[in-house]
Amino acid sequence: MITSLQNPTIKKIVKLSKSRERREQQLFVLEGARELSLALQGGYAITEVYLCREMFVHSKYPEVLDSLPVEVITDISPAVFAKIAYRENSDGVVALARPKSHTLGELTLGENPFLILLESVEKPGNLGAVLRTADAAAVDAVIICDPQTDLYNPNVVRSGVGGLFTVQTAVCTSEEALTWLQQHQISIFAAELQAAEFYQEIDFRPPSAIVMGTEADGLTGFWLRNATKRIKIPMRGKIDSLNVSVSTAILTFEAMRQRGF
Amino acid sequence: MITSLQNPTIKKIVKLSKSRERREQQLFVLEGARELSLALQGGYAITEVYLCREMFVHSKYPEVLDSLPVEVITDISPAVFAKIAYRENSDGVVALARPKSHTLGELTLGENPFLILLESVEKPGNLGAVLRTADAAAVDAVIICDPQTDLYNPNVVRSGVGGLFTVQTAVCTSEEALTWLQQHQISIFAAELQAAEFYQEIDFRPPSAIVMGTEADGLTGFWLRNATKRIKIPMRGKIDSLNVSVSTAILTFEAMRQRGF
Repeated sequence: MITSLQNPTIKKIVKLSKSRERREQQLFVLEGARELSLALQGGYAITEVYLCREMFVHSKYPEVLDSLPVEVITDISPAVFAKIAYRENSDGVVALARPKSHTLGELTLGENPFLILLESVEKPGNLGAVLRTADAAAVDAVIICDPQTDLYNPNVVRSGVGGLFTVQTAVCTSEEALTWLQQHQISIFAAELQAAEFYQEIDFRPPSAIVMGTEADGLTGFWLRNATKRIKIPMRGKIDSLNVSVSTAILTFEAMRQRGF
Repeated sequence: MITSLQNPTIKKIVKLSKSRERREQQLFVLEGARELSLALQGGYAITEVYLCREMFVHSKYPEVLDSLPVEVITDISPAVFAKIAYRENSDGVVALARPKSHTLGELTLGENPFLILLESVEKPGNLGAVLRTADAAAVDAVIICDPQTDLYNPNVVRSGVGGLFTVQTAVCTSEEALTWLQQHQISIFAAELQAAEFYQEIDFRPPSAIVMGTEADGLTGFWLRNATKRIKIPMRGKIDSLNVSVSTAILTFEAMRQRGF
């Protein structure tokens, strides 16, 4: 049982909050028994599990440990857990996992795909929130172009509440994504405040991708030029902006409504 | 010009991050020229403005100062600004304002009202996100019942990006809200994962309120018992949950779609 905050293993885990360390160690941190269960189901390789049993007794997912070899589990004290955990209301589980590759070529599409594409997403919390929504709507995949944050940032993992493990994702350049979408004959709907067409008048039933820009700057000209249509959500207030995960959800659930869920 | 972090005024502002201090001082902190402009339009009394001119030269809303008496403006250094500001990408404006009263009796409703009701909302970021969405959808009002956070928490103000100032809000008990909704003949749609009816089959065109619970526990029996209908959003993924601000947006924009925006 690890009880010292000075333990080198604990220091190694803390370092994984940094993008460079994640790349070098080829590991990332996830937290919570449910997330661990979803990561296992999603085929992620779990290399180590750190367990605070005093907290884990309250977990709603105690069976998650049954599918893991005992030698990957290390007991830790509550103080050590507090040091390496990001979330409040945790159930005492922190795990290290190997990142996956996320190429367009590996995506498996359904018969009539619906995809979410995020250009240059900046805030990890927004990316995580989109992954959570993408899970609920069962979209075929989320494509992340030229991201300003890394998919395994702790805030993406946390705010995704498992969506990172359940949703197919590809990370690529905008050019690669466009070529791929065109090859698959998927219509491209670029969300833009100044667009001519309202989303509720769009037919999302054929193969479709919605393309979302950053909250600060919207989409680049690349996606506005190459979109099948530019669409907007009616803004009736004084602020003229929605959170990008909220806009994404409004468009995605309208598409699912049209498709009969 | 204030340049010292030890200045008593600066210490007073920092203290306003605490709920008790906000109550005692009857002041709260807002940030950004745009938010200040929206607060002024919303009839909030601005008592003091702290201005870092080196940052303010880049503001997109320089005219906001024109409507303020010069004596409320105090210049501050970048270091002092960094001490009292919450946001990144700020434009050098921090202001103190008086809280308003938020009673049900003060709400003004349109001919065919649509309202959002949040029960026991916990996370300030979620409350702010709902206010931002409520602005975009131009709902009549947001009613906040038995909140676990205070409306003027810095994270509510920040994540609302001005929605706190543009949207009518009432804070009350669930009992008071129910009586008021019944008096105004407003249908009550309680969002619940186990509900029988799907939201997309509900007619939101008559006077309606959607009632949202906490992410952790959902709605209490009080709202489930007293709802006109219990409704749910189809969940097709593995996680079975959406962020409360995302659920609220999906329901609200479906209502607005039915109403022709």
